[in-house]
Amino acid sequence: MGCPWVMTRLDLDRICAARPLINPVFLGTPFSMCEPLGERLGCEVGVKLETANPVRSFKGRGTELVVEGLAGASVVCASAGNLGQALAWSGGRRGLGVTVVASRFATPAKLERIRALGARLELVDGDHELARERAAAIAASDGIRLLEDSLDLETCEGAATIGLELVESGIPFDVVLIALGGGAMATGVGQVLKELAPGVEVVCVQPAGAPALTLSWRERRLITTETIETIADGVAGRRPIPEVLADLLVIADDAVLVREESIVAGMRLLFEQAGLIVEPSAALGVAAVLEDPDRFAGRRVATIICGSNVDLTAHRRWVSP
Amino acid sequence: MGCPWVMTRLDLDRICAARPLINPVFLGTPFSMCEPLGERLGCEVGVKLETANPVRSFKGRGTELVVEGLAGASVVCASAGNLGQALAWSGGRRGLGVTVVASRFATPAKLERIRALGARLELVDGDHELARERAAAIAASDGIRLLEDSLDLETCEGAATIGLELVESGIPFDVVLIALGGGAMATGVGQVLKELAPGVEVVCVQPAGAPALTLSWRERRLITTETIETIADGVAGRRPIPEVLADLLVIADDAVLVREESIVAGMRLLFEQAGLIVEPSAALGVAAVLEDPDRFAGRRVATIICGSNVDLTAHRRWVSP
Repeated sequence: MGCPWVMTRLDLDRICAARPLINPVFLGTPFSMCEPLGERLGCEVGVKLETANPVRSFKGRGTELVVEGLAGASVVCASAGNLGQALAWSGGRRGLGVTVVASRFATPAKLERIRALGARLELVDGDHELARERAAAIAASDGIRLLEDSLDLETCEGAATIGLELVESGIPFDVVLIALGGGAMATGVGQVLKELAPGVEVVCVQPAGAPALTLSWRERRLITTETIETIADGVAGRRPIPEVLADLLVIADDAVLVREESIVAGMRLLFEQAGLIVEPSAALGVAAVLEDPDRFAGRRVATIICGSNVDLTAHRRWVSP
Repeated sequence: MGCPWVMTRLDLDRICAARPLINPVFLGTPFSMCEPLGERLGCEVGVKLETANPVRSFKGRGTELVVEGLAGASVVCASAGNLGQALAWSGGRRGLGVTVVASRFATPAKLERIRALGARLELVDGDHELARERAAAIAASDGIRLLEDSLDLETCEGAATIGLELVESGIPFDVVLIALGGGAMATGVGQVLKELAPGVEVVCVQPAGAPALTLSWRERRLITTETIETIADGVAGRRPIPEVLADLLVIADDAVLVREESIVAGMRLLFEQAGLIVEPSAALGVAAVLEDPDRFAGRRVATIICGSNVDLTAHRRWVSP
């Protein structure tokens, strides 16, 4: 419990100590202003690109820390696809047995990569919450480590190293837009900014079709939802984790919900103006600006492009004029 | 003339000294293995991504050095589009007057960005060689600095910093595939590898439709060509520069020519397997593997994704199944 004015489970010293344990291939990602995108959005937009690594998402930052703490054991996680790829990559390089549990409705491109990376993949006939239950059951029955995204501090601390890099870039920004799923990225990056750049507004962005954690943040109590209706598979949860909500209440300045058509429009703008193929979750920040341009007008906005594991056929359909 | 066993105009000490003068936004670019791409190519493929910066190509590394040496003056260059953007960006931030001369047949997306970045753009009714002549005439009549790509050492030294990063990555590779246009990237990156990683094979790749420098390298004498027939606008020259050829004769282990259909197939593979939008020049390395898979089978291949300034309509047509 380090910082006296940002009381969460996270600690800046631990985050700084974690960074050297992460394979450099996940670190030092590009952060630069994208003028064409900014012109279209009416603000200055800095893009932090987390997709140019072997698993095409930021999740490797966290899984590197997880496997560092495991000595020759096995590990299981539930995943919408990105955490599973990252754990398969990190675990595979260290000879660990990795099991990933996913919904059979998960993005095929993600499932295919999890298998290709050598993990055991188990599919459940339900959504991500059922996959979480099944992963927990496997961990209990097999006596192996259960990795729980956003609950386990390694996942938050790994994501938090993005925050260190944003601050160290020297590129000034007024507000950061962070995709909100389980909450690891929002609490991790947010914690670092609150401590090292407290003037930066931390805004979480979640699809209106998967609003549980945002609603919980607004109501300051746990709210679960019954259904998920979003293409942003990477942030589609229904049951927030109490510990993560507690941290998010300390960290987030705001949490906004965006419509599906804004996510699609965000993907299209990132494609057309920045030449980037991104998965829907990575377009949430741009979607937030599109929905409330006055709020961001003329400001310096940083957004994290958190993943690019997307079905290309669907992407083509989404971005086509 | 530093290194006694790699006698060129380039010098490792100068390259190392140049690096801190370059805006960090162009440095430390991602380099990681892309397994899905490697599986399709039958070798291990490391991708060095030079597109996640404000000008979406590696050219900023060189233009930063150029403007560092200019004190409040003006500068003119000929450009197929990427050098012009980079010079406009670097010069614009320092309040320099930047003039870019380009062919009126240049990629519209590139010309548009040069204008948007505040440079004066002059179009000539001919190809890149005519633009070079016109830029030289402007420099002479206006008494301003003429930046000549690949001839001026800053452009080679800037590109050479890519080589430093490749070596420093600690990721081993056996061969590097470098797009060959004017020659700055090939001689710059190649020089660093020859000095610091002499076991790495340096292979230059040029379109068969714009073969002048490759033919010159093979014949060990200057060969000019009459016409250009390639979609790879970034490397489309007809008149090699004698000093650059002399360096390339020392540096390159091989120079290969690839067909247009291989360039397109390379763009498609980078799109489908790596999720990358690239311009044709950036696909030359992949094209070289596609044309001679036996040569690269099982080897560790590094390729530099040098730019992503591409017309999206054309890109869609090229990569569509």
